[in-house]
Amino acid sequence: MADTVKQRLEDLREVMRREHLAAFIFPSTDPHQGEYVPDHWKGREWISGFNGSAGTAVVTLDAAALWTDSRYFLAAEEQLRGTGFQLMKLKIEGTPTIAQWLGRQLQGSPLTEVGIDGWCSSASAVKQLIGELRREGGLTLRTNFDPLRVVWRSRPAIPTNPVEVFPLQYAGESAHDKIARIRQALREHHADGMLMAALDDIAWTLNLRGSDVHCNPVFVAYLLISTRDVTLYINKVKLTPAVTSYLQAEGIRVDDYDNVTRGLRDYFEYNILMDPDEVNYALYQTVTREKIEEESPVKRMKTIKNPTEIAGFKSAMLRDGIAMVKFLKWLEESLPTPHHPTPITQHLTELTIDRKLTSLRAEQPLYRGISFDTIAGYGPHAAIVHYEATPETDIPLEPRGLLLLDSGAQYMDGTTDITRTIALGPLTDEERRLYTLVLKGHIQIELCKFPSGASGTQLDVLARQALWREGLNYLHGTGHGVGTYLCVHEGPHQLRMEWKPAPFVAGMTVTDEPGIYLAGRCGVRIENTLLIVPYCETEFGRFLGFEPLTLCPIDKRPILPDLLTAEERQWLNDYHQTVFDRLSPHLTADEAEWLRQACSQI
Amino acid sequence: MADTVKQRLEDLREVMRREHLAAFIFPSTDPHQGEYVPDHWKGREWISGFNGSAGTAVVTLDAAALWTDSRYFLAAEEQLRGTGFQLMKLKIEGTPTIAQWLGRQLQGSPLTEVGIDGWCSSASAVKQLIGELRREGGLTLRTNFDPLRVVWRSRPAIPTNPVEVFPLQYAGESAHDKIARIRQALREHHADGMLMAALDDIAWTLNLRGSDVHCNPVFVAYLLISTRDVTLYINKVKLTPAVTSYLQAEGIRVDDYDNVTRGLRDYFEYNILMDPDEVNYALYQTVTREKIEEESPVKRMKTIKNPTEIAGFKSAMLRDGIAMVKFLKWLEESLPTPHHPTPITQHLTELTIDRKLTSLRAEQPLYRGISFDTIAGYGPHAAIVHYEATPETDIPLEPRGLLLLDSGAQYMDGTTDITRTIALGPLTDEERRLYTLVLKGHIQIELCKFPSGASGTQLDVLARQALWREGLNYLHGTGHGVGTYLCVHEGPHQLRMEWKPAPFVAGMTVTDEPGIYLAGRCGVRIENTLLIVPYCETEFGRFLGFEPLTLCPIDKRPILPDLLTAEERQWLNDYHQTVFDRLSPHLTADEAEWLRQACSQI
Repeated sequence: MADTVKQRLEDLREVMRREHLAAFIFPSTDPHQGEYVPDHWKGREWISGFNGSAGTAVVTLDAAALWTDSRYFLAAEEQLRGTGFQLMKLKIEGTPTIAQWLGRQLQGSPLTEVGIDGWCSSASAVKQLIGELRREGGLTLRTNFDPLRVVWRSRPAIPTNPVEVFPLQYAGESAHDKIARIRQALREHHADGMLMAALDDIAWTLNLRGSDVHCNPVFVAYLLISTRDVTLYINKVKLTPAVTSYLQAEGIRVDDYDNVTRGLRDYFEYNILMDPDEVNYALYQTVTREKIEEESPVKRMKTIKNPTEIAGFKSAMLRDGIAMVKFLKWLEESLPTPHHPTPITQHLTELTIDRKLTSLRAEQPLYRGISFDTIAGYGPHAAIVHYEATPETDIPLEPRGLLLLDSGAQYMDGTTDITRTIALGPLTDEERRLYTLVLKGHIQIELCKFPSGASGTQLDVLARQALWREGLNYLHGTGHGVGTYLCVHEGPHQLRMEWKPAPFVAGMTVTDEPGIYLAGRCGVRIENTLLIVPYCETEFGRFLGFEPLTLCPIDKRPILPDLLTAEERQWLNDYHQTVFDRLSPHLTADEAEWLRQACSQI
Repeated sequence: MADTVKQRLEDLREVMRREHLAAFIFPSTDPHQGEYVPDHWKGREWISGFNGSAGTAVVTLDAAALWTDSRYFLAAEEQLRGTGFQLMKLKIEGTPTIAQWLGRQLQGSPLTEVGIDGWCSSASAVKQLIGELRREGGLTLRTNFDPLRVVWRSRPAIPTNPVEVFPLQYAGESAHDKIARIRQALREHHADGMLMAALDDIAWTLNLRGSDVHCNPVFVAYLLISTRDVTLYINKVKLTPAVTSYLQAEGIRVDDYDNVTRGLRDYFEYNILMDPDEVNYALYQTVTREKIEEESPVKRMKTIKNPTEIAGFKSAMLRDGIAMVKFLKWLEESLPTPHHPTPITQHLTELTIDRKLTSLRAEQPLYRGISFDTIAGYGPHAAIVHYEATPETDIPLEPRGLLLLDSGAQYMDGTTDITRTIALGPLTDEERRLYTLVLKGHIQIELCKFPSGASGTQLDVLARQALWREGLNYLHGTGHGVGTYLCVHEGPHQLRMEWKPAPFVAGMTVTDEPGIYLAGRCGVRIENTLLIVPYCETEFGRFLGFEPLTLCPIDKRPILPDLLTAEERQWLNDYHQTVFDRLSPHLTADEAEWLRQACSQI
């Protein structure tokens, strides 16, 4: 791979020289600002060989560097070895920004123009970059040239998978009503229309689903709303007759995907709302009408689940919990023990247990696939935050240490995301201590109450305080929203250290997943998906709390009980009682007995 | 007062009609964006009668309203009664913004121009207002007209008190070295110079102090720094010969205060840094050079105390603690008791105890005055967050209930800010419960550890979680920086719910002052001033913690010990041990014995 990357860099630099470009920047996203992108837009992976979901590659004529976050430090180091790419660790003291690095690299260079594909970066990212580059000795940015069109010869096509209607029995609100609410929100922003580019927002608005993106049931399209019309820009080959009739009945016009530029040029209203974090720079620049640059109101609407969606989530979580319990029991019984020093079933590895878990989920009604690539990391692999086992890295499970298992599924009635860290046998004192500190953080979030409108940035510390007091930390967010049979990462609200002005209100989902990762040693993460629910109303306003949606025991064996407060122990016992009460009626007697023990009081 | 305000409103509206102004906005600040302002700039108080430190009055031709925050809800309601001003409660659901309210009030009005004095609002506030008003049906803003020049006939002059040199033995760094560091910071922002308008920043930079502003040892001036010159714009009558020689020796040019506009017009460099939150709109508009709009680097420099300043703080806190202990002992012994049903000394009231406390502080070396108006609120008065007793409101203390006492002093070597809530006798269960919940929040902040660079927004929840779980809250910030013989409120870092991108680093001071206020019943606040100190360094970076600077017992009598965790009890006992060890050597035997009991273990 390293040699392939080197060759691609050479090809790219050839083109850069021809175009008088001093550098080219490859972000990880696509024209729709997706986190997971179709292969067609995996240009950063193609040029660098690094396949993490987040990262930016920058290439000059004689250097190359890749910025990514702590989830991928270990994986990126591995994948970039020998490619000529230097790893730049985001949020680590001393790491330069892309502009700073370019400023230094290009000092004295006769070329001062940097390139980026304006289609594959948000308007806000490009505008910020323009300012930063100008301050670095007057570098300029060209956005209308994509070298991948030339150098990426076997580039995959944009996917054309069929679209399907998402039934009202799961959506709980018709597309017609959603569009009416969106138009109402636009009026509050004094906006006549808006361009939607986020694929999950489009799928949510129209009650349609697709399969263009791995693990995410979305389809590639744009949606333009004006005071009179709603136009879906999509490759029509994706529309079945059923979907075409549905769109006609809902009054949605259909035009070709590539016509969105023309659609924006012909847009005749006075102004248009464009979320500069959502819309790519190329389309942003197309618009000549007054732009209202605000966060898209659809983001927030989508995150507040209606009663039908909440009921769906609870139902999906029940089935997901059943699959998880069957899996955990199977795993425990399949591991080597003193009585059975060799595994009684097949040899267990990170990959084989993933297959088993997926097959158990697939037996559940309404299952539609996994919601993200399973992270099954055993021992030191658990310290790689977004580790994905491959045949090359796969290792057998042994009857000791911790297995970190982060997985989830797409069901027609809801999306799941759960992490459990499981003791496979004897643990070290350090493993027990780390596990218990992470569990404390997890429980503090479950327990907390807050005024309606508080942000995740305010609450995040509750998950970290036990770790911080030991000089420990994790550099990823504590939690994110989860879609309704949509993306497993759904914003804008989240639990994290960084500021996000996205207030928490009742009806939102959010994960609670603190962790700790010691490179080369072990990793722990414990995650439930929570629902934000009303708590009380007083003279100080409305207060909210969390209700766990996830139903699955949390491994008690690694816990050092003395490190938990009485209140934390009580929460764990209460949660386990709920898990047992909800799941046991749906289990065999053997399974229910296993669950009874897994849920017994500590 | 209500009739006076009505007459002033009539005079103002007369002028507004002549100028075709639909409305006029009076903010609470001055050309230097001070929190406490000289009388000359108290236009909002003059027009509305409301004397709180924060508030904005808005007057149309037939309506008037005043926006203020929760600290002043009760006081404002009282003061605005009968004036024609409607109270607008900030941060309460349903309260319109000023622009929204004007949009509604002026619907259908033939006049669409709103006025504000461009000298008395920051550039960022005016720019934001312009945008908001435009969105409210196209209202426009005029900034070059101040009706107070016409209608406020007995307007006080700008103060001209003498300036004095702040000795190096307390400052710890010369003005020359500070200016060199500021120029270095400007170079990092690619800026050639800057305009300083914040009076405490100017006093800090030049190692000068003044007395133009109540409780704040600052003087009215501007400071213009370019690559070659530093010019102080100040009324020269304030400069003693000693200060004039000092400024000459430091190479600081002096020009008249009113010449700052000309100084900015003549500024010859390529660009200038202007902090849009600090510089007023009038001066901001004067500049024709490129403006670099960033936070002033001086703000942050000033908040990170050098070793001399830290030593000074500790010394000042020791003396302040001695005065507080003498006061608390005196108060306890002066209250009526079952044995002495009438006070043994003079009749105690909110005002008389304030005088006693101030006189005890004034006995301490290096005392220079109070750092803010004492808040001594007994019983229901304690629920008025920024209550200031007056002869009209003053009430006698009785041997029951809670007294909230928030006070502080200016010493040459440091500024103090402390709140204690004191049991004067038997308490209700509610009072004990509220007191203990507030104490829990206070202690959680004292105990917390965090990565260097964390913000106060992230930590604030630790002070509130115990209250939130009971549906309680306080709507003021949890803490603020404290200056070195400067303003008692020093930013930009703070502990609060709202986002402030101001990272905490070692050497900063910050108060820890959660509270609870039940209107008409009682109020509790417990405040120490803390120093941010290094905690540990691990593979996850540098971690920080807090060290209490304030040395004074926290009343144990109201505590419900069962509500405290073992860790919280331990913190209180450890803190009290420190207080006793540090203060007792400086006390009489009687006082030390009183302190020993006040500091005994719970």
